[in-house]
Amino acid sequence: DLVTYCCDFFAPKDQTLADVNVVITAGPTQEAIDPVRYISNHSSGKMGFSLANAALNMGATVTVIAGPVNLTLPPEINRIDVKSARDMHQVALASLATTDIFIACAAVADYRTENVHTEKMKKQTDTDSITLTLVKNPDIIADVASASDRPFCVGFAAETNDVEAYAKGKLERKNLDLIAANDVSVGTQGFNSDNNALTVFAKNKRFDIGLTSKKEVAKQLLTIIAKEYQQHS
Amino acid sequence: DLVTYCCDFFAPKDQTLADVNVVITAGPTQEAIDPVRYISNHSSGKMGFSLANAALNMGATVTVIAGPVNLTLPPEINRIDVKSARDMHQVALASLATTDIFIACAAVADYRTENVHTEKMKKQTDTDSITLTLVKNPDIIADVASASDRPFCVGFAAETNDVEAYAKGKLERKNLDLIAANDVSVGTQGFNSDNNALTVFAKNKRFDIGLTSKKEVAKQLLTIIAKEYQQHS
Repeated sequence: DLVTYCCDFFAPKDQTLADVNVVITAGPTQEAIDPVRYISNHSSGKMGFSLANAALNMGATVTVIAGPVNLTLPPEINRIDVKSARDMHQVALASLATTDIFIACAAVADYRTENVHTEKMKKQTDTDSITLTLVKNPDIIADVASASDRPFCVGFAAETNDVEAYAKGKLERKNLDLIAANDVSVGTQGFNSDNNALTVFAKNKRFDIGLTSKKEVAKQLLTIIAKEYQQHS
Repeated sequence: DLVTYCCDFFAPKDQTLADVNVVITAGPTQEAIDPVRYISNHSSGKMGFSLANAALNMGATVTVIAGPVNLTLPPEINRIDVKSARDMHQVALASLATTDIFIACAAVADYRTENVHTEKMKKQTDTDSITLTLVKNPDIIADVASASDRPFCVGFAAETNDVEAYAKGKLERKNLDLIAANDVSVGTQGFNSDNNALTVFAKNKRFDIGLTSKKEVAKQLLTIIAKEYQQHS
């Protein structure tokens, strides 16, 4: 609102990430089945967009690669809208040369349909079931992290079980610098909620961000990212 | 906006549908694959919500059975939020006894996954493709139209090809009173657009609503529905 805006405007400018290019993926991806149907993930984009605002407030140059979401960003943030995981992958890799910190917050569809039908599929009257063959999508954060000119890489792990073990495995397997894990089986956080809680892992480090607004979570996470990034550079 | 609101407020009250219960399904449905993934249809819910407002403005008692959408309704409209096609089907049939006009505007998923995984499915590292078995969802409008105490039934046909032939076939096959067909292969109308154009078919009748705002399309369509409903009763 206006009060928040004015307070932010007149607050002393944080320049922790001045001259740092931060690229953030946000929202879900949509994988077409045909012109009317698609496969997607639950994701409002709020966490990614909050991170973009937090990075901007720390003086960073921010680009958001956004899947289909109903959210807006301040004009200072460069926004690239995409639909599918392959679109997002392409834009992410194309921006590598100018990326210092890459934050993969999007809920990317792991699989897409093998064949996209160009006309609406009709309900089959003679059969009660159909099978859909899904093929693996490219792994965006893994490809970014394995590039020769790799940026500082932050991943997310939204899990419903064995959250810590899975997050640490992903950190190592995909060669990330940091991973932020959240347990999406808890109804009060993540997905379409306005709140979130995260546990952040680096190699041999752990940071806990307790349940609070996504805006505040974003601020705390960016502070951790900035510190780790500066120690790493 | 405020001007529109005030104009509507002070306009002479249209009572064409006074004492008529109108039930409208709107938006997409979401069919869970697992806790994070789902299958859905493109649908903003704007057309259904515009129809609800138009019906309210004609004095009707309005219920909206809404899939997941980012839209609001005036407090005079009874809103029931659902997620899956089966949820929507159940609510629609449960409201039959008090429904005079049923308008099936939702983009219901024809198929759902046979098995919903209770934990997030992990990407298989050893295989490049997976198959998803989909089973047919109940046909909401067909079940409403074949009930013994059936209301006046209005269906929608969002098609990408052979629009007229398919719409007329659906009108007859599902025993509807009216069907509103739109060609969603045209980028300027339908789905997430603010505009739409419809061709409406009754048995031996045809009405054309040219490309205009969904609000105006809704008004024109409700006028057709009200007239046909009154001739039918």
